[in-house]
Amino acid sequence: MSEPALLPPMPGQRLARGVCRLMRSLDHAVLTEFTPARGLRVDVIGLGPKGEVWIVECKSGRADFRADRKWQGYLEWCDRYFWAVDGDFPTDLLPGDTGLIQADAFGAEIIRMAPETRLAAARRARLQRDIARAAALRLQALTDPEAFSAGAF
Amino acid sequence: MSEPALLPPMPGQRLARGVCRLMRSLDHAVLTEFTPARGLRVDVIGLGPKGEVWIVECKSGRADFRADRKWQGYLEWCDRYFWAVDGDFPTDLLPGDTGLIQADAFGAEIIRMAPETRLAAARRARLQRDIARAAALRLQALTDPEAFSAGAF
Repeated sequence: MSEPALLPPMPGQRLARGVCRLMRSLDHAVLTEFTPARGLRVDVIGLGPKGEVWIVECKSGRADFRADRKWQGYLEWCDRYFWAVDGDFPTDLLPGDTGLIQADAFGAEIIRMAPETRLAAARRARLQRDIARAAALRLQALTDPEAFSAGAF
Repeated sequence: MSEPALLPPMPGQRLARGVCRLMRSLDHAVLTEFTPARGLRVDVIGLGPKGEVWIVECKSGRADFRADRKWQGYLEWCDRYFWAVDGDFPTDLLPGDTGLIQADAFGAEIIRMAPETRLAAARRARLQRDIARAAALRLQALTDPEAFSAGAF
């Protein structure tokens, strides 16, 4: 058993960690806080082995959901769209034609599978490129932070 | 200035770190030790902002180069192919129709630009998907190692 990791500080981040563990178990590679297009930032995006793109928005409570004016803009950037909430969330608030995941900081499960609306090939290719670049840049920032400091060369 | 990072232990890894810093400065997102296809593992692969794919093989010396039986197999997985060597390497050994980078652990520069042979669209899309998945999985392994431990859920 490895050292237990610190819990993320924000409720939405704790849900996202559990969602990412679920996605890992489903063989999706995940990225948090990803920007598919200017002005949009999704909590979790997952890329499956065949290139399937899932987006998961994590909502810590009713107010957090009510304040979200952007979620419909995310639908066109994925094949399947899910909400992730904790066990106390009033799920009746959520639109029925979206996926539902119940999560906490330690894991998650799919309560209702999201319907599939397949991305066009060009958009999928662009998303895969952008996910690849974002993930690789973050990885390099962690493994060699000096690559990002102004005076490195 | 951040804390200086430890030098990678192997000569080839030190070259790769410098190459990755160069690639970062050229706005390529990089991944080391990437497997484009079964049986092939490239030292550095870079993905540019328009999806350009560069492969860089790092050679620590004459013997390392002579022992490489696979490099021609890498050509079909990139738009441009480079060797990266240190200042003492006998560069006359290297084929002239490939790119050449001079590197150390701290940085690198392009001595000879590689000719371009553009990937087919389907192969580029597949590479971008595979780079995205590899990078995102490595990132999650660093940021939440428990997602990868058998007993996590």
